[in-house]
Amino acid sequence: MKNYMNLKKVNKIIYRTHNCGELRKKDLGKEVILSGWIQKIRNLGSLFFIDIRDYFGITQLIISKKQVKKNFLLGKEFLIKVKGKVVERLSKNYNIPTGEIEILVSYINLINSSLSPPFTIEDKTDGNEEMRMIYRYLDIRRNPIKNNLIIRHNLVLEIRNFFSKNGFLEIETPILINDTPEGARSFIVPSRTHINKFYALAQSPQLFKQLLMIGGIDKYFQIIKCFRDEDSRSNRQIEFTQIDCEMSFVEVHDILIFFEHFIKHIFQKIKNIQLDPFPCISYSNAIKMYGTDSPDIRFGMDFVELNDLVQRKDINVLKTQELVIGIKVKECKNLQQNKMDCFLKKIENKNFFWIKYLYDQTFLFSNSIFLNEEIIKIFVKYFEAIPGDLLFFSYGKKRKTREELGKIRVKIADILNLKDSKTFTPLWIKDFPLLEWDKILKKYKSVHHPFTSPKEEDLHLLEKKPKNVRTKSYDLIINGIEIGSGSIRIHNKNIQNLIFKHLGFSKKEIESRFGFFIKAFEYGVPPHGGIAFGLDRLINLLERDQNIKNFIAFPKNNYGKDLMINAPSFLEKEKLKELHFR
Amino acid sequence: MKNYMNLKKVNKIIYRTHNCGELRKKDLGKEVILSGWIQKIRNLGSLFFIDIRDYFGITQLIISKKQVKKNFLLGKEFLIKVKGKVVERLSKNYNIPTGEIEILVSYINLINSSLSPPFTIEDKTDGNEEMRMIYRYLDIRRNPIKNNLIIRHNLVLEIRNFFSKNGFLEIETPILINDTPEGARSFIVPSRTHINKFYALAQSPQLFKQLLMIGGIDKYFQIIKCFRDEDSRSNRQIEFTQIDCEMSFVEVHDILIFFEHFIKHIFQKIKNIQLDPFPCISYSNAIKMYGTDSPDIRFGMDFVELNDLVQRKDINVLKTQELVIGIKVKECKNLQQNKMDCFLKKIENKNFFWIKYLYDQTFLFSNSIFLNEEIIKIFVKYFEAIPGDLLFFSYGKKRKTREELGKIRVKIADILNLKDSKTFTPLWIKDFPLLEWDKILKKYKSVHHPFTSPKEEDLHLLEKKPKNVRTKSYDLIINGIEIGSGSIRIHNKNIQNLIFKHLGFSKKEIESRFGFFIKAFEYGVPPHGGIAFGLDRLINLLERDQNIKNFIAFPKNNYGKDLMINAPSFLEKEKLKELHFR
Repeated sequence: MKNYMNLKKVNKIIYRTHNCGELRKKDLGKEVILSGWIQKIRNLGSLFFIDIRDYFGITQLIISKKQVKKNFLLGKEFLIKVKGKVVERLSKNYNIPTGEIEILVSYINLINSSLSPPFTIEDKTDGNEEMRMIYRYLDIRRNPIKNNLIIRHNLVLEIRNFFSKNGFLEIETPILINDTPEGARSFIVPSRTHINKFYALAQSPQLFKQLLMIGGIDKYFQIIKCFRDEDSRSNRQIEFTQIDCEMSFVEVHDILIFFEHFIKHIFQKIKNIQLDPFPCISYSNAIKMYGTDSPDIRFGMDFVELNDLVQRKDINVLKTQELVIGIKVKECKNLQQNKMDCFLKKIENKNFFWIKYLYDQTFLFSNSIFLNEEIIKIFVKYFEAIPGDLLFFSYGKKRKTREELGKIRVKIADILNLKDSKTFTPLWIKDFPLLEWDKILKKYKSVHHPFTSPKEEDLHLLEKKPKNVRTKSYDLIINGIEIGSGSIRIHNKNIQNLIFKHLGFSKKEIESRFGFFIKAFEYGVPPHGGIAFGLDRLINLLERDQNIKNFIAFPKNNYGKDLMINAPSFLEKEKLKELHFR
Repeated sequence: MKNYMNLKKVNKIIYRTHNCGELRKKDLGKEVILSGWIQKIRNLGSLFFIDIRDYFGITQLIISKKQVKKNFLLGKEFLIKVKGKVVERLSKNYNIPTGEIEILVSYINLINSSLSPPFTIEDKTDGNEEMRMIYRYLDIRRNPIKNNLIIRHNLVLEIRNFFSKNGFLEIETPILINDTPEGARSFIVPSRTHINKFYALAQSPQLFKQLLMIGGIDKYFQIIKCFRDEDSRSNRQIEFTQIDCEMSFVEVHDILIFFEHFIKHIFQKIKNIQLDPFPCISYSNAIKMYGTDSPDIRFGMDFVELNDLVQRKDINVLKTQELVIGIKVKECKNLQQNKMDCFLKKIENKNFFWIKYLYDQTFLFSNSIFLNEEIIKIFVKYFEAIPGDLLFFSYGKKRKTREELGKIRVKIADILNLKDSKTFTPLWIKDFPLLEWDKILKKYKSVHHPFTSPKEEDLHLLEKKPKNVRTKSYDLIINGIEIGSGSIRIHNKNIQNLIFKHLGFSKKEIESRFGFFIKAFEYGVPPHGGIAFGLDRLINLLERDQNIKNFIAFPKNNYGKDLMINAPSFLEKEKLKELHFR
């Protein structure tokens, strides 16, 4: 075996004996080799103090001027390798773990020089988002971005281990599939070998995870990239990551219980936060109580319906409205008086009015024709308002009135700083309607997606009054943000076909788009359901950050462009020809 | 909070109290609910014995004829829910974990009926590959495929936890990137919003993982889908999964040591197999010893070079050859005599000859003009052959002679069953050449890829004799299959540019294709290197299976078609227009 090599005898380059974050007082006197990027240089005349940085931390070097002169000029982000002895620092820096020692350098070697970086590589940088995206590799050297990637790694690993321990299999589903209508547009991939044919990039593994259930897999999950060809939308990525789950032989109840456990586990493990039990309300009640299907319930202010009151008290203008609703803002301090006054002024003369119960027991109120002392007292009494409270009212058509008071409710919480960033308040919304009317296309579309099961008690409406049918669907909302969405799926062929029909698909279209899926329904489909969570959103929420890009190593901008590599880009003509483009 | 629901009070459908794999003797007397697919029905006149199957196993039911008649007809793959009592079986089946009990059914409910499946849903099926792919969801119900998906899940989870424990971060890199030349063709994705521009699907995260190292990440890994638009090739998938790794501040030595540890860990954990230390040879020695860069070393038969011998012994024809090599097949039993004779006949009259040392001390040999008793004895003596041994020789031009004897070596191992399927013999091949000449395109191409670092000792050849330069590259071969491939990357701008030049890229092309990458080289690139393993191949090897599709939930066929969903497919004209196709 003379030709075989013994790896242990190979002479090799050693870049480091330790990293830049690990040396401590206990290492005093050791001869070490470190490699790292220059973070800071202080010139003290005969000496240089240089901080070098790597993934693990920062270590201070002392280098005599002679040493450096002999070699070369140094600057920020130059990558150097040094040999030296660990010595105790005179002026210790207790802010960093290596702050009690420094390296007395005996040898210094430049691995690579650097241009002056286009923005400062510090926790707070002077780089704007565009520059940070173009030079993302430099942005990643900054602690905030690096730490976000570490947190994301830990979160994802924890999720995988959690699901695995709970009997879920992670199964890869294909990315290159066919175009199926799932609400958004798919990216299209021309086939070179199958002329005039196209793949589409999967928007989600929806049909495949259902086919896995049909295939007898009991519990499935996958953390997977999904692709949607969306027009520019801030804080959305055209490729994003989903935590996708599906279970067989379950009902809504089982899913909500299990995934409440999941979310609690994640908050406990990652943030050491104990979440309270998740409340659960129906879609229609969410609309009635908050004017939205993704309510932020950190700050109360549920809607109060006042139609009975205004009828009973015979209040003009209001008594003839389809809906009158109000909210009470408790002990509304004067801290944000200016902002609030501004806001109150802005919403006057629309279908709103407000009453402010002042501490001197008098009232301020909006300029509405029907408001007078007597009527104000009716509302104040009804709401049991006390001095300091603020009452808001909205009236008109049901849907619009609720939606608009919903927006006002959130706006007030912003103005008064009622959104406690340390509180996480999850909420399940369930029983969404099956269909909504698309005014532009003049046809029904699915509220969730075409595979969502109607509720048993509404099945009798499915044929004739599909608009009134509610579904076995649920969203998980935390602090007003939709974190997860799912449903129990249809496992009955006839119901599935009827819904396709309601959605306006012809028999031919059903066959060409979903033929394989309908065929699978002939072979004993089990009851099943699932949920998908947006990983990018979940981590944003956990870390209380606003910008989704901060947790993605190489994000695209809001227009789907990768500014670093300048994608998408033009193609060579030959390549286009190969793909049968003209 | 009158509108909030208490989940615990919801009336719900219960599909099962237990699964079909968990009931045992200790459960006798329990009233249970089970759901599952009918695997088998035996009609005993007044009674039916029915086996129902789910993900977890099989349970036998006893149903009285009356019970069934009242309800409906049953058949294979019908999905039923039953209530009943756990009773002890009279004739126990010790082959399955539930074989000591059965369920005396009191209530039976049909959840979904089924057509007769197109192939038997048993461990051994009568379905051909095409049918199994079209009805993949039924194929997945079979234990062999289901178990493969479980094994894959466990393997992938083990890999992720291993890397995480060793300080690697899993970081997602983008799929939608630009087309860069990486050896294979990329799939192209037209942009709808950026007219005439295109994304390409990433063939690998190569540049991005290098940019992560430039970004100061110390150790990276990712288990990621990669995409290559290849012409039909058996056992290749157009979308496949890679275990992708990269480390900073390392040399070849560090990588080989660490990833030997990784592979050993996986074999230990998943297969309980303790691998021997991995030998390591250079590319050029692999070619000299085995005629291939992916040798199977389970069965010896290293090449012996005979040029000196044939010169010294003045053997006609052979003494003028560029290369003469031979191998000895030890104690070649007569078991496969027919096959072997057939093979020997087939290779006669080419640049081969063979000598068979019979047990009666005589020789059989191929019909070559220069072979005679005297010459045969020279070779037999040189090889220290004994009766039963078989000698093979090849001669001619170096490269071709080696390649062809390499193929014969493998073929003989096949014929004589020398490839022990229980043995795993890993081997590192290193020091591949930098470049190879592409005869068709008439230019150099990279043997690994354009980012592979030359060896220090060959750097002086880079400018003038690039063809002679060897690189810091390595492949991991197990049982003749390439499982992993990687290299130390270039971290010097000038070397990177020089190699781009050798590959025939103009300055403009370098700028347009790799501009962002070259730019990153201005900011202190660290020494770094990595490796990528084919997950599909690794699991195939671990499970000693030949067909990669058996470990992929929804594979494509050898022509890149998904037979189940019939992708790729034609697109609607509107969609084409939207993408600016004409």
